[in-house]
Amino acid sequence: MPKVFTTARRVEFCETDAAGIAHFASLLCYMEQAEHSFWRSLGKSVVEPLEGGYHLSWPRVHVSCDYKGAARFEDELTVTVEIEKLGTKSITYRFTISSPQTPVAVGKVVAVCCRVKAGEPLESQPIPPELSQQLREFVADPE
Amino acid sequence: MPKVFTTARRVEFCETDAAGIAHFASLLCYMEQAEHSFWRSLGKSVVEPLEGGYHLSWPRVHVSCDYKGAARFEDELTVTVEIEKLGTKSITYRFTISSPQTPVAVGKVVAVCCRVKAGEPLESQPIPPELSQQLREFVADPE
Amino acid sequence: MPKVFTTARRVEFCETDAAGIAHFASLLCYMEQAEHSFWRSLGKSVVEPLEGGYHLSWPRVHVSCDYKGAARFEDELTVTVEIEKLGTKSITYRFTISSPQTPVAVGKVVAVCCRVKAGEPLESQPIPPELSQQLREFVADPE
Amino acid sequence: MPKVFTTARRVEFCETDAAGIAHFASLLCYMEQAEHSFWRSLGKSVVEPLEGGYHLSWPRVHVSCDYKGAARFEDELTVTVEIEKLGTKSITYRFTISSPQTPVAVGKVVAVCCRVKAGEPLESQPIPPELSQQLREFVADPE
Repeated sequence: MPKVFTTARRVEFCETDAAGIAHFASLLCYMEQAEHSFWRSLGKSVVEPLEGGYHLSWPRVHVSCDYKGAARFEDELTVTVEIEKLGTKSITYRFTISSPQTPVAVGKVVAVCCRVKAGEPLESQPIPPELSQQLREFVADPE
Repeated sequence: MPKVFTTARRVEFCETDAAGIAHFASLLCYMEQAEHSFWRSLGKSVVEPLEGGYHLSWPRVHVSCDYKGAARFEDELTVTVEIEKLGTKSITYRFTISSPQTPVAVGKVVAVCCRVKAGEPLESQPIPPELSQQLREFVADPE
Repeated sequence: MPKVFTTARRVEFCETDAAGIAHFASLLCYMEQAEHSFWRSLGKSVVEPLEGGYHLSWPRVHVSCDYKGAARFEDELTVTVEIEKLGTKSITYRFTISSPQTPVAVGKVVAVCCRVKAGEPLESQPIPPELSQQLREFVADPE
Repeated sequence: MPKVFTTARRVEFCETDAAGIAHFASLLCYMEQAEHSFWRSLGKSVVEPLEGGYHLSWPRVHVSCDYKGAARFEDELTVTVEIEKLGTKSITYRFTISSPQTPVAVGKVVAVCCRVKAGEPLESQPIPPELSQQLREFVADPE
């Protein structure tokens, strides 16, 4: 059975909009925050330091989200993180957001493994093996 | 030839992140802002008033975005709006964002036509015929 | 001794800017979030329901903030809430934000007690006596 | 007569909150955006390059704002920028925001002149003389 990481996130007032609900882009930020929280649960950071003054960076190349129901101010949302696909250089995350009242959103994010150093451009690189091993336990449907 | 609406948007400092680029969720806000600007170009508002104290509202049921390149502080982006599909109750928008240096993002948003009144829940409804006619000119591939 | 409410808040990536630190406006959102968390700690909501379909609303009439040090991605900040002054119709909050490394910010917010109902304008009103009594315990220097 | 810089800014939907108005922290972002637009009007950038790979950076040490009236979605705001005080190492800006219907906010920001280089900490420094000369024309009450 693949592991699933679960975290909670309350809707803050500044994240709502004049329609009275969490703005659609806020939900994508909740997914990113759950992703970072997931990394911390592994004892790592999404900006994990590497040798030579580099650190990891995971630019998004794709996001998508299906909205299922509204989240409102002070709703305490549950966000789950699974890995849909683990490539040698990318992770496809799957996020599910729900409130006590309703499913809220299901989203997907594809992030690419890169290293970066202050003042230098990003370079893509393979996911470090130790990380890859930790991540593999969360892969929903390993091929 | 279908029409394309084009607008400009400068990357503001508060929209960048510690990776030094426009945060991925900011680009989805730029798409929404281009959508609203598109409506104004038609002489309408995305929250167009209707009879009986109602106004239109267009909740998103789906968004997706492919990221092609980074946008940085003070880059002046070009955002184009096309309609990929015009349903009786929904619009599928297609957005293209580019900077003078690079393509930045291509996104899709599906918004559903609803009416709403203060203190009452949203109700989906057909797109009003006059609007539908204006929108049809922007449909990329009318069937 | 006046009571002080304390809460924790991690700096999220989307709240940082291209200078590599939490954007100055994010810190004002952290203060607002601490304020709302303070209300929940009292068993209330900042949008507490009133009779007749009204609920409380607390528009800000003044905010100020002195920045003392930078907060960075994943810093776990401590935010304290005190009440500097409790008027009959307003609350002057004082917030202190610090990271494990450094004081980050000291801020002040003046919020005015109002009631509001869907589709109607705000009306200022006295703070309900039961609330006022709960709040009084947090007044830093009662006159 | 000191010069005043004026710019326009439409309230975007993602900047509103569930109270139906521009969130109070959004107004501080509008001030920062007006500041950056002011710099561009001088033919400069707020992150003006300096010798040796450094560039200017202007961290805020103080902000304050008095809220006078609500700004709503699609309101086209006017933002004026004046310099209240020009020090050797800091600028005190004064911003006034208004909509066609109402004064919205008056704010103050104190920003400190610093230089920074990728991977190095900020260092405060005197405002470069050429800049200082350009800025002096906007000082509201030169002493």
